[in-house]
Amino acid sequence: MNVANDLHAALNDAVGPDQVFTGAAIDLRYHTDLRGQPLPRPGFVVRPGNTEQVAAVLKVAQRFRTPVTTQGGRTGVVGGADAPPRGIALSLERMNRILEVDPASMTMTVEAGCILQSVQDRAEAQGMILPLDLGARGTATIGGNIATNAGGVRVLRWGMMRDMVLGVEAVLADGTILSGLHKTIKDNAGYDLKHLLIGSEGTLGVITRAVLRLRPAPTSTQTALLALSSFDHAVTLLRRLEGDMAGTLSSFEVMWDDFYTLITTANADKRPAPLPSGAPFYALVEAMGAEPERDAARFEDVLAGVLSDGLASDAVIAQSGADRDRLWAVREDLNEPMGRMWPLFAFDVSVAVSEMEAFVIAAKAHVRARFPDAEFVTYGHIGDGNLHLMVGTGKADGDTHHAVDTAVFETVQRFNGSISAEHGIGTAKRDYIGYTRTPAELALMKAIKGVMDPAHILNPDKMFPA
Amino acid sequence: MNVANDLHAALNDAVGPDQVFTGAAIDLRYHTDLRGQPLPRPGFVVRPGNTEQVAAVLKVAQRFRTPVTTQGGRTGVVGGADAPPRGIALSLERMNRILEVDPASMTMTVEAGCILQSVQDRAEAQGMILPLDLGARGTATIGGNIATNAGGVRVLRWGMMRDMVLGVEAVLADGTILSGLHKTIKDNAGYDLKHLLIGSEGTLGVITRAVLRLRPAPTSTQTALLALSSFDHAVTLLRRLEGDMAGTLSSFEVMWDDFYTLITTANADKRPAPLPSGAPFYALVEAMGAEPERDAARFEDVLAGVLSDGLASDAVIAQSGADRDRLWAVREDLNEPMGRMWPLFAFDVSVAVSEMEAFVIAAKAHVRARFPDAEFVTYGHIGDGNLHLMVGTGKADGDTHHAVDTAVFETVQRFNGSISAEHGIGTAKRDYIGYTRTPAELALMKAIKGVMDPAHILNPDKMFPA
Repeated sequence: MNVANDLHAALNDAVGPDQVFTGAAIDLRYHTDLRGQPLPRPGFVVRPGNTEQVAAVLKVAQRFRTPVTTQGGRTGVVGGADAPPRGIALSLERMNRILEVDPASMTMTVEAGCILQSVQDRAEAQGMILPLDLGARGTATIGGNIATNAGGVRVLRWGMMRDMVLGVEAVLADGTILSGLHKTIKDNAGYDLKHLLIGSEGTLGVITRAVLRLRPAPTSTQTALLALSSFDHAVTLLRRLEGDMAGTLSSFEVMWDDFYTLITTANADKRPAPLPSGAPFYALVEAMGAEPERDAARFEDVLAGVLSDGLASDAVIAQSGADRDRLWAVREDLNEPMGRMWPLFAFDVSVAVSEMEAFVIAAKAHVRARFPDAEFVTYGHIGDGNLHLMVGTGKADGDTHHAVDTAVFETVQRFNGSISAEHGIGTAKRDYIGYTRTPAELALMKAIKGVMDPAHILNPDKMFPA
Repeated sequence: MNVANDLHAALNDAVGPDQVFTGAAIDLRYHTDLRGQPLPRPGFVVRPGNTEQVAAVLKVAQRFRTPVTTQGGRTGVVGGADAPPRGIALSLERMNRILEVDPASMTMTVEAGCILQSVQDRAEAQGMILPLDLGARGTATIGGNIATNAGGVRVLRWGMMRDMVLGVEAVLADGTILSGLHKTIKDNAGYDLKHLLIGSEGTLGVITRAVLRLRPAPTSTQTALLALSSFDHAVTLLRRLEGDMAGTLSSFEVMWDDFYTLITTANADKRPAPLPSGAPFYALVEAMGAEPERDAARFEDVLAGVLSDGLASDAVIAQSGADRDRLWAVREDLNEPMGRMWPLFAFDVSVAVSEMEAFVIAAKAHVRARFPDAEFVTYGHIGDGNLHLMVGTGKADGDTHHAVDTAVFETVQRFNGSISAEHGIGTAKRDYIGYTRTPAELALMKAIKGVMDPAHILNPDKMFPA
């Protein structure tokens, strides 16, 4: 009891007693999973207001050997920010200020708790964009985006979150503040600590501030949905559009027939299907340019060529913003369709584009060897080699989950892919990381973790097998 | 003597006696600096033929506590690959095979000793490009490009070398082979060891193979030289072209008047100056697209707007490949001009674009406070915030060099920039890394070095102060 009291008092000293919560005073949002189910309550929720307070909290945690899990918007899907039972949930939600916009350098400096959408909006108000975009934009924080190296639907052109971060400030496990808030695109002075922290899921440090790289806002958006008769056609189309659209192709999303049929059927009451189902594949493509009228004509020309060359069997081009939203809804309005398929297990894997179709066939066969009636829904950011695969077996128990995970991840391993393209490892995939990383890689990761967090206080139950 | 003999015998066992060289049998190319001056001869030159032989050599080095410096094309400019006196120069020149081209995945898998130009040529033969380009392309190797995170003149669009590497295989200090030859663009499974190795200058491991990301080959190139009346105009022009050229702007190089006047005067016998000197700044801009005729017209339209808006005072657009070469020669044909200015000290720094002009003024003032007659030549990849600054004081002695370095790097520190944008640290800048990295950053780098190479055999005298 004394230790707990001492710890509580020390946390009070670090951030002020009004920002330390315990017991029933802890709001459910700090310990609720994706589906709204409560998780074990953490010992403390602590809400620092600045970097120095984060450092003070970590020094306290270090002294008391108490685990700390950093929380942003809690929109991750692998449990990486699940609060540590009996430990500290470190919420950065109060650190949500935009500190500076520098239009000449095209940078924005923000605190880690900034909501992605507020950053997007601020950039757009000044004729720029932060290219990162994803469904959770209204809740996800920049710090979380960095800690998980977020992906999304525009990676093809602008890369992942790590490609939009010029500098980070982070607090290390011992409370040391690592200051790297540079605005420089090029910096070859020593090891790239920034890239080591990005994607480390709160296990190596707490990201507190960042300098983001902005881009000029495109003034035109061209969007189309195409029906394709084979996966080879999808790959050929991708490469052709990348060439013909010369640097402006921003999305190339492919849906397998199972996905397209499920979505358009389940959402039929909301909106008609933009193209009839029945084709083996559908591609949603988008390009963003700088000459609205000309870009539309060019896009139509390129797609006309694609059709006349037989690369696509049918196509619909968005003629308005509303059209565009309807086309994207086919790809993104997943709640009702997923509900029909529930229970399901979701995968976010990557393999070489050249092996993607073979991978899907092999993964399905591997799952069906154990679950002959398994249903699949398949789609992904094909331009990035990233597949989302949903598997439904009618069961949701742990043994079934493990068996399906194992079948899919064994196939990923055989195809030399990654078991996590963009969602990360967290707790959901930590037992499987060995399917995607060699023992030598894992040993090196653990050695780095050991030197940066020797007391294992930073998100200790995440990323690596227990 | 016995230890040396034992070491020699062990190296013979590792790679075969015909690939181990000592004493006078060591060719000068393994221990010559940039200007052709001989450096101390290494104890051994060892030339492995494959990854397993690299691992065997490192195990030997580990056993004998012998320093190992990996050598590629020896085109670095900071001494990072200078052979270790009494140690092992590990030349990867025999490991120069292109192992696979995968057009559907747009990847090429190569051995580290591949020459950059041979990779460029192979990609182009299949309608693709490796976007990395730099003057040493005919000698520099892919392994060296990765180990130093090479930059060049197209970073603005395609990024640095780290943005073109999907997977690496490396051998760690203890001989462990770290296999990461994935073709995946997205991979969030654990810490990004690839990014840690890239740019580590041979101090954390020996990169032996890599999967490179290729891009569709552009079919049109538009190039122009513009005269500008202020640096503000340069920044405005950069942002306008980035917007108007929608993803196709690949180079934006700015030359200060001192640079332009020196180059065009010194090379006057070779070719006339494309624009008269006298403007405060010149910008060399290039865009690469997919519609040759249309792109030329668009480029002319955009530049006409730039001129009529007063953003540029004069401009010349290349009408042919020969024109284009002549424009680039203004930026790149530096031998004769640099000879006239010799002795000089060269800098490769980066600062925020918004502070670049102020930085140059401050750095010049700081140098001139000590050397009132100092001459400067200033140019850079402004789109990337990367400046090259040449300083001539008429003297080349160590004290002068140190005084000029200190003045420039103190200014870099004051502007929160980097003392090395693309060239790296090596031996040339290791005593100054503290101007660009905090004590906390350096302590963390050294801790990582300590855990990955506890015996300090990998390029031990590089990157960090002695």
